[in-house]
Amino acid sequence: MIAAIDGNRLVARLKQLGDVGRDADGRLCRVAATDADRDGRDLLCGWLRAAGLDVEVDRIGNMFGVWRPASAAGNPLMIGSHIDTVIDAGIYDGCYGVLAGLSVIEAFQAAGFRPARPIAVAAFTNEEGVRFAPDMMGSLVAAGGLPVDRALATKGTDGATLGDELARIGYAGPFEPGFLKPHAYLELHIEQGPVMEIEGQAIGAVENLQGISWQRVTIGGVANHAGTTPMRLRRDAGVAAARTVAFLDQMARGIEGAVATVGTIRFAPNAINVIPSAAEFTVDLRNPDEARLKRQEAALADSLGGLRGEGYEVATERLARFEPVVFDPALVAAIEQSAAGRQLSCRRMTSGAGHDAQMMARVAPAAMIFVPSRQGISHNPAEYTSRDELVAGANVLLDVARSACGAAR
Amino acid sequence: MIAAIDGNRLVARLKQLGDVGRDADGRLCRVAATDADRDGRDLLCGWLRAAGLDVEVDRIGNMFGVWRPASAAGNPLMIGSHIDTVIDAGIYDGCYGVLAGLSVIEAFQAAGFRPARPIAVAAFTNEEGVRFAPDMMGSLVAAGGLPVDRALATKGTDGATLGDELARIGYAGPFEPGFLKPHAYLELHIEQGPVMEIEGQAIGAVENLQGISWQRVTIGGVANHAGTTPMRLRRDAGVAAARTVAFLDQMARGIEGAVATVGTIRFAPNAINVIPSAAEFTVDLRNPDEARLKRQEAALADSLGGLRGEGYEVATERLARFEPVVFDPALVAAIEQSAAGRQLSCRRMTSGAGHDAQMMARVAPAAMIFVPSRQGISHNPAEYTSRDELVAGANVLLDVARSACGAAR
Repeated sequence: MIAAIDGNRLVARLKQLGDVGRDADGRLCRVAATDADRDGRDLLCGWLRAAGLDVEVDRIGNMFGVWRPASAAGNPLMIGSHIDTVIDAGIYDGCYGVLAGLSVIEAFQAAGFRPARPIAVAAFTNEEGVRFAPDMMGSLVAAGGLPVDRALATKGTDGATLGDELARIGYAGPFEPGFLKPHAYLELHIEQGPVMEIEGQAIGAVENLQGISWQRVTIGGVANHAGTTPMRLRRDAGVAAARTVAFLDQMARGIEGAVATVGTIRFAPNAINVIPSAAEFTVDLRNPDEARLKRQEAALADSLGGLRGEGYEVATERLARFEPVVFDPALVAAIEQSAAGRQLSCRRMTSGAGHDAQMMARVAPAAMIFVPSRQGISHNPAEYTSRDELVAGANVLLDVARSACGAAR
Repeated sequence: MIAAIDGNRLVARLKQLGDVGRDADGRLCRVAATDADRDGRDLLCGWLRAAGLDVEVDRIGNMFGVWRPASAAGNPLMIGSHIDTVIDAGIYDGCYGVLAGLSVIEAFQAAGFRPARPIAVAAFTNEEGVRFAPDMMGSLVAAGGLPVDRALATKGTDGATLGDELARIGYAGPFEPGFLKPHAYLELHIEQGPVMEIEGQAIGAVENLQGISWQRVTIGGVANHAGTTPMRLRRDAGVAAARTVAFLDQMARGIEGAVATVGTIRFAPNAINVIPSAAEFTVDLRNPDEARLKRQEAALADSLGGLRGEGYEVATERLARFEPVVFDPALVAAIEQSAAGRQLSCRRMTSGAGHDAQMMARVAPAAMIFVPSRQGISHNPAEYTSRDELVAGANVLLDVARSACGAAR
């Protein structure tokens, strides 16, 4: 019997899990380490156990459903993502990758496939970072990038401590993070961007993940009366900020692979008839190539240096910095090969968003498979990927998983 | 005896009035129609009565101290300004003009000068507009620009009604606004800008007052993930706003007499990793020449039209529009003549801020005299004009008042 994903069950489970954690207004808010998160984890645990998997939870709350058939030996192939959500979320982000991993194991079981290695489905704690910072925390801890005790001591936006909250909801497990070392890591995810839909691609073979540079910029000028201060006597912090925002947009258009976004801005004193004395804004620069990302950062620094030369005070604060991640070429090639075999359109692509896979790539060969997101919308109830697209992605995951863990002799 | 301002008394009264309406933190907050405003009015009333003036209050709370010596007949020369303040104010804005008017009358009385017309000192209600909109309300009503009953029905930022509040503090007077028609109107004020200090001028002969155009601009784009949305697929409302802010600054530098200020801005959803779907900002355009002010407005409209052409949604809302005011040339010449006679440096200038004089100019020949503001600071406890500068301005006011009302035969 040829292994194939049970598409109906996969989609039904996505919807069922998507109904867990709705608030009074019907919004999906399954934020990490809340009661809603516990309810979602409980539901997932039931499905993992029903498939005969060993459910193992580590100290940071990462959950693993491990299939260890008699045929298997050595480190497991790991297929993972997360089931925590943002506030007012869609139902696909993260959950799709976890539930598709379970579907792959169930398909192998149904077809009598005997893998040479164990296969683990992973659901990492707090990928979204809404309540506890940083995001991708569970996989970062599992990959050894953050000591577990420091992570557990994290204070949430509501003042709660992550460790206390995990214990309270019953998901502070006994295993040391990293106890399950993957032979390889695969993650299937919605694109969360518009490119695949616009280009009509069914499968994204994600070959790398952008480096990210986040900074907060503060520009100090001089507040003065908007009517009585001639243009030549002004030092308008708002104009300096605006020039920088416009510059970053043009700059990013001139560097291959670059994006630049100013998503937040604030003027002080923020009065209609007062020249701004200060402007504060955030800068989000990304590029899959480290050298080009550094060029973007240097261009911003040059631009701010120019403002200093005009007499403005300029301060910058680094909020985040991740180098680009290059995924495993053999796994990426396997994704392309599967898509070709199934006559699915496929393109190599860069992940613009952060994912657990970027952390797991530190400890194992890793790759990601993308499926389209309608209108590129994500982190929003309008997030949508069609049933056929979901099933196509899961079948590619199945193919790559089979080749990555190999059949027992 | 030659009439001269009693500088010590003028400065002492400014300080005494400046101590009325201090909040628990010591901040001067004599906001219109509050208990603090009542206390300030009571103090002023005492001084007006002590000088033998008739104190008359109209229905919108404008206070007049009128000197009607036996020599005087016809409409009064009016010298006025306001004593309400912003929150955390300085002590000079408005109060200086009112108390200097009283000093002029006292100087005439002491010198035995017999004016051909009555002289009225006016303190207009709610010039600042902090609690009740619009600003310059009392003089606007007195000049017939706003029906008194509509003004009295105004709701404050705290939900109170102006009419109720004026009655409560005892300053809802019996006179119909406009009952006292001025023969001419004079207002002495601190510059509230940096030009006189920078140029070393003692006296400003204010020949006109800028026209003001206030608009709120809202730009709609498309929110998307800052990492996954390529530059070519973006419609970033924040970038569109930033380009407009930078454009307005350049535009104003190219039009004579123009200023342009974007004092407030707001992005939505205002998240570091989300491309702004909307940007809202205010635009403050001013020019003493109506045709040039219209050119500024047209340039903004053209710029916004360009954004519409790029696919942005753009909406504008008019928040305020005043045409420029040209003051009475004979009064302006009299100011220059007085300054020359007193060997005070003097320049013709434009008022960048709004003043009660712009309303009174609708019903009488009017002009303003400016004295320097240290560093151009106003609406702030650091507001400061030296004793000598204050006295020099009051003596010029005295000269112009004498020539404007004339000596009785």
